[in-house]
Amino acid sequence: MTVRELIETHPHPTSTDREVLVRCIEDCFECAATCTGCADACLAEDDVRELVRCIRLCLDCADACAAAMRILGRQTDPHPPTQLNTLEACLAACRACADECERHADHHEHCRLSAEECRRCERACEDLRSALARP
Amino acid sequence: MTVRELIETHPHPTSTDREVLVRCIEDCFECAATCTGCADACLAEDDVRELVRCIRLCLDCADACAAAMRILGRQTDPHPPTQLNTLEACLAACRACADECERHADHHEHCRLSAEECRRCERACEDLRSALARP
Amino acid sequence: MTVRELIETHPHPTSTDREVLVRCIEDCFECAATCTGCADACLAEDDVRELVRCIRLCLDCADACAAAMRILGRQTDPHPPTQLNTLEACLAACRACADECERHADHHEHCRLSAEECRRCERACEDLRSALARP
Amino acid sequence: MTVRELIETHPHPTSTDREVLVRCIEDCFECAATCTGCADACLAEDDVRELVRCIRLCLDCADACAAAMRILGRQTDPHPPTQLNTLEACLAACRACADECERHADHHEHCRLSAEECRRCERACEDLRSALARP
Repeated sequence: MTVRELIETHPHPTSTDREVLVRCIEDCFECAATCTGCADACLAEDDVRELVRCIRLCLDCADACAAAMRILGRQTDPHPPTQLNTLEACLAACRACADECERHADHHEHCRLSAEECRRCERACEDLRSALARP
Repeated sequence: MTVRELIETHPHPTSTDREVLVRCIEDCFECAATCTGCADACLAEDDVRELVRCIRLCLDCADACAAAMRILGRQTDPHPPTQLNTLEACLAACRACADECERHADHHEHCRLSAEECRRCERACEDLRSALARP
Repeated sequence: MTVRELIETHPHPTSTDREVLVRCIEDCFECAATCTGCADACLAEDDVRELVRCIRLCLDCADACAAAMRILGRQTDPHPPTQLNTLEACLAACRACADECERHADHHEHCRLSAEECRRCERACEDLRSALARP
Repeated sequence: MTVRELIETHPHPTSTDREVLVRCIEDCFECAATCTGCADACLAEDDVRELVRCIRLCLDCADACAAAMRILGRQTDPHPPTQLNTLEACLAACRACADECERHADHHEHCRLSAEECRRCERACEDLRSALARP
């Protein structure tokens, strides 16, 4: 992916573990796309009334991931509290969305895929949180 | 503003102090627009090299406010940890951006306006945080 | 609103009719917020299955308005074809969303409010399109 | 990528050539990330004053791609004029950004990468435009 190469070309190289940072940004992108798609697929299901909470949390998760990948991806003069709180917000949104999507994973394949992607992004956020906490 | 009226028409009325919620959403909108504009005006200044940190924090603040107004504005099945962490991220971004814009407020009117708006949004976020913490 | 003042402080003043530009940016903001709120309120209605198209078009309209207010608001080195096409996309999204919201305006107050706001934004986009076309 | 699988699980399968649609959504994501990163890297360069137009067009392109991947990715009750105009806006933004990034590709590796990604996304948008025009 170009993101990985691009982050390596920044004039001020990040002090964060680059591999962990790139993985988190990529997973945020993938998760934002997946949750946008799952919310849309849920809307078209016959049992949409059972999926209202899932749609809501997918929309939240897509918005949180979209903000996180922008704010965490910037390496010029970063502001650690903004980055850390943005990461926590993304983590909370991924976890809530994964929990809800898992409840529908048996009968809706898009929820199963979305749950998996949210869990992956949740772990990538946890790894980046650990990396940012290291001196 | 329509946002205020619209929030009153939601079938599940919010349990949060509505006045505080509406003010926070409106300030997030205004702050996102102002920071997008300040980053752009900074880019066109002759001393853009002195404004790099200001541009970066304005871009962060616009992204954090845009995510916050969407996630906080939704009243259907909200997830409190996602909302609270999103609010904290927005608060941190507003504070950092206000601090930096204030440093340039004497010589750039757009930085003065942006600093004022970021402080207003920071206070609205603090008020909403207090309101969300109440049972 | 701060946006109006901020646009006046830009080092490179816009060649576009400033009043028309500011109104369009403000309406895009208001419309993005209103459509985000209407989609969310629709989700919580008992007849959500009748509102699926309305939700979808509200989500589109919020996304189109959010992109438009950023891209149109930037005054540094603008690229006319990008601005014009972004405006057309916003206009199409507002029109489609207004048409659909009007169909539900009798029984859902949030749809009535959203339809009104989309029509207002549609007109502001048309006015800006005329202004941009003038030499 | 999960996006591809997810689009296949939608209850209302798209009438558009699925391969072309998925490629466009994926390229919009990649391009949004790359342009966000290139704008940020440009900000940190010593010759930032020469890169002002590049930064502006990268910010536009990231916003246009982010809106496009959301609006084009939704398959529930799509509105063709909104989708087509959104695609045109994305195409115009990618082309303008590629043209400008290419001017700096010799001395900034991030501009070279960003130019390549913008061209790839431009072509994916053209292919989707052709596919949408087919009956």
